[in-house]
Amino acid sequence: MKIAVLGTGMVGQAHAARLIDLGHAVYMGTRNPKKGPADSANQLNSWIEAHPSVKLMTFAEAAQRSEMIINALNGEIAVTVLKSIEAGLGDKVVIDISNPLDFSKGMPPRLSVSNNDSLGEQLQSALPKVSVVKTLNTVNCLIQVEPKRLAAADHTVFVSGNNMAAKETVIRLLQEYGWRRIIDLGDIETARGAEMYMPLWLRLMDSLKTVDFNLKIVVNE
Amino acid sequence: MKIAVLGTGMVGQAHAARLIDLGHAVYMGTRNPKKGPADSANQLNSWIEAHPSVKLMTFAEAAQRSEMIINALNGEIAVTVLKSIEAGLGDKVVIDISNPLDFSKGMPPRLSVSNNDSLGEQLQSALPKVSVVKTLNTVNCLIQVEPKRLAAADHTVFVSGNNMAAKETVIRLLQEYGWRRIIDLGDIETARGAEMYMPLWLRLMDSLKTVDFNLKIVVNE
Repeated sequence: MKIAVLGTGMVGQAHAARLIDLGHAVYMGTRNPKKGPADSANQLNSWIEAHPSVKLMTFAEAAQRSEMIINALNGEIAVTVLKSIEAGLGDKVVIDISNPLDFSKGMPPRLSVSNNDSLGEQLQSALPKVSVVKTLNTVNCLIQVEPKRLAAADHTVFVSGNNMAAKETVIRLLQEYGWRRIIDLGDIETARGAEMYMPLWLRLMDSLKTVDFNLKIVVNE
Repeated sequence: MKIAVLGTGMVGQAHAARLIDLGHAVYMGTRNPKKGPADSANQLNSWIEAHPSVKLMTFAEAAQRSEMIINALNGEIAVTVLKSIEAGLGDKVVIDISNPLDFSKGMPPRLSVSNNDSLGEQLQSALPKVSVVKTLNTVNCLIQVEPKRLAAADHTVFVSGNNMAAKETVIRLLQEYGWRRIIDLGDIETARGAEMYMPLWLRLMDSLKTVDFNLKIVVNE
């Protein structure tokens, strides 16, 4: 599948590398694709050199050339960037894995939107033609793309979205990554639940002194 | 131990009954202790008749007579009620198991405080002498008092609080209830994490069509 990964940070790199391994074509979107390779101090350069099949291009071009888009941008800029490339997004599936973290008040970060709205909803509302599916924001990026690195993948991930077919497409990708426990929370409004779990995740990170954890939902049979 | 349970709803009843079974003395606090037994339409009456060792009294008297207090009140009234009985609370341990749920905007409820504050913190700040320990608010009351009804108690509960000795006392009570996986999140500020998990819990309840579930935190060893 042709998949755009928007964002070249740790999260974008984790997804791009894993998608290449799984045999997908990856179009990595960035603000200025020239800047990366020209700047030798940039960690992105060595990563791009190590992953020659990943194509680095503008956000707009990556969206245009792909069938599905992964939003691995900083949550604070996600709506603005995606809105600016609306034409290229068309009616494609946008997998939103970002979190609306606000670091301006110190650590741990607060949420810039919560309780009566969510970043997932904001994206869906700004881009009414695309199908936003919120997922994976509840775990560290290394677990996102390879859940079996933790407890043989015996832990849970969530999906939220209005379009059932889009959710099914995303669930198939999650299964390719190795996810076995996937809970469909419901429509995109339920992204509030997944995003508002972040404050607990952040405090668990402090308490457990690792990011290598997740929750498993245990239900009485 | 002499334990006050403030609140006579389903949550208060679950704790009172379980504490009696465990051999504790239970003082159940309510707004008007006369009202219950006089009103035969009240479900509380038959419950009180079935649990003769539970003593029903005013909030103030329950707090005064006990060594430890469980706040099983509706989150919306918790600060007001507890502040009104501050003298009786003294410097005792207050176990806050309530959630700041706001049903005024429809279902699922929103949180009346979140992100930059929490109900746990509001209680601690309104009652500087007591030691507030936030716990158990992340599970249904039947699981709260008997975790082994779900997956042989192989799932997680959290504690948050400023006073380490108070947390240790509460952890011992949690262990009496049957909890085996208890994570200390840190000081009372971390109650934000436990309370902001509620929106996810509410959507899981909708999706799973049961309240008989919990999360287990899975960590890479």
